Amino acid sequence: MIFAAILAGGTGNRMGIVEKPKQFLLLGNKPIIIHTIEKFYINPNFDEIIVLCPKQWINHTKDLISRYINDSNNIKVIEGGNLRNDTIMNAVKYIENSYELNEEFIIVTHDSVRPFITHRIIEENIKYTIEHGSCDTVIPSTDTIVESEDGKFISSIPNRQNMYQGQTPQSFKILKLKELYNNMSNEEKNLLTDASKIFSINNEKVFLVKGEVSNIKITYPHDLKVANSILKNGL
Amino acid sequence: MIFAAILAGGTGNRMGIVEKPKQFLLLGNKPIIIHTIEKFYINPNFDEIIVLCPKQWINHTKDLISRYINDSNNIKVIEGGNLRNDTIMNAVKYIENSYELNEEFIIVTHDSVRPFITHRIIEENIKYTIEHGSCDTVIPSTDTIVESEDGKFISSIPNRQNMYQGQTPQSFKILKLKELYNNMSNEEKNLLTDASKIFSINNEKVFLVKGEVSNIKITYPHDLKVANSILKNGL
Repeated sequence: MIFAAILAGGTGNRMGIVEKPKQFLLLGNKPIIIHTIEKFYINPNFDEIIVLCPKQWINHTKDLISRYINDSNNIKVIEGGNLRNDTIMNAVKYIENSYELNEEFIIVTHDSVRPFITHRIIEENIKYTIEHGSCDTVIPSTDTIVESEDGKFISSIPNRQNMYQGQTPQSFKILKLKELYNNMSNEEKNLLTDASKIFSINNEKVFLVKGEVSNIKITYPHDLKVANSILKNGL
Repeated sequence: MIFAAILAGGTGNRMGIVEKPKQFLLLGNKPIIIHTIEKFYINPNFDEIIVLCPKQWINHTKDLISRYINDSNNIKVIEGGNLRNDTIMNAVKYIENSYELNEEFIIVTHDSVRPFITHRIIEENIKYTIEHGSCDTVIPSTDTIVESEDGKFISSIPNRQNMYQGQTPQSFKILKLKELYNNMSNEEKNLLTDASKIFSINNEKVFLVKGEVSNIKITYPHDLKVANSILKNGL
């Protein structure tokens, strides 16, 4: 079975200040998250699309989905976790509770605020995860990347031709993901800022899928302007 | 003495196809390169501003400068080199031929297509180059950075908190720069895609100056849209 996990944030701002998360802002005539879900919805490979969002936004997300998407039977909205990987593991738990997990099950995890994901990127994530066990979507780094351990002086400047900027999806064989994650200490888990790292630090192969410059993450207000421009005219 | 080197490209396209380089496109009501030069021109610290551009664009660049800038006596336009570092070394040669170089001379090198450089960034480049010998302007990486040696599978995912995206200026004590560069083999020189690497691979300190997200490089057509939007409304 093949699942999509749309990552729409964790349990929300712990300061208690609840702003409307970016994924609910309008892009063209519908919310960003709906654009994103649709890209997976129209792909016939997915058995279920799991949307993970903060608890207080679950109902709103469900409302949006039923308003914008005709037959939303295979779309589930559940609560995310505190950290990105907690959110992904919540999706894994949901799948385990609903189906009998086997080693062929795969999950394609994607940021809800990357609405310009293409059909090709999704297809390649599925294909190469089946083949290699895990995929990460990347583009060659346009900037020189500089490493600094103390934040004051350069430690090294790695060869630019080896450096890539991570996008999403990141895709995994679910049983392997679960096994690797559960074998890590809490300390190790807290250091992971990236899901592909669960595989890479365990020396498991992660295949690179070519992303697109247009597969932007909408984080800052100016990203939304760029996104509206991409929507109208392309990149 | 303190010099600025505005890097506006090398000797041009070796295929013989001459398109108008990006730095000459209009941003608001004047060419990108004029915005950039002005940021250095209004800073009283610079003894000379050296603009390096392809041979066939030298006259055009001079014309633009005299059209847009009132008193352009301390702005020189000279030919760039094939590679970025050749271009920087052309500036060094020009300075050597014009002045008696001493170890206090510094050069602030900057992309001509980064017009949103701020006064603070320039000031800090000067200050910390005097103090430490070299500076690089960077912002913390927003994306996860992925390293791959074969371009197919991930080799490593470095800790994101140690990773920075390089911008410009990159600033150097000139005599040290020259000495380090001349001690490198041609093979080593050809591998350098970045000027700060001349210092870092020789274990010389390169101090990090905090850049700005708005200090964008105008490379793609959509960057020019973003730039026009920054010009009007800020980021």
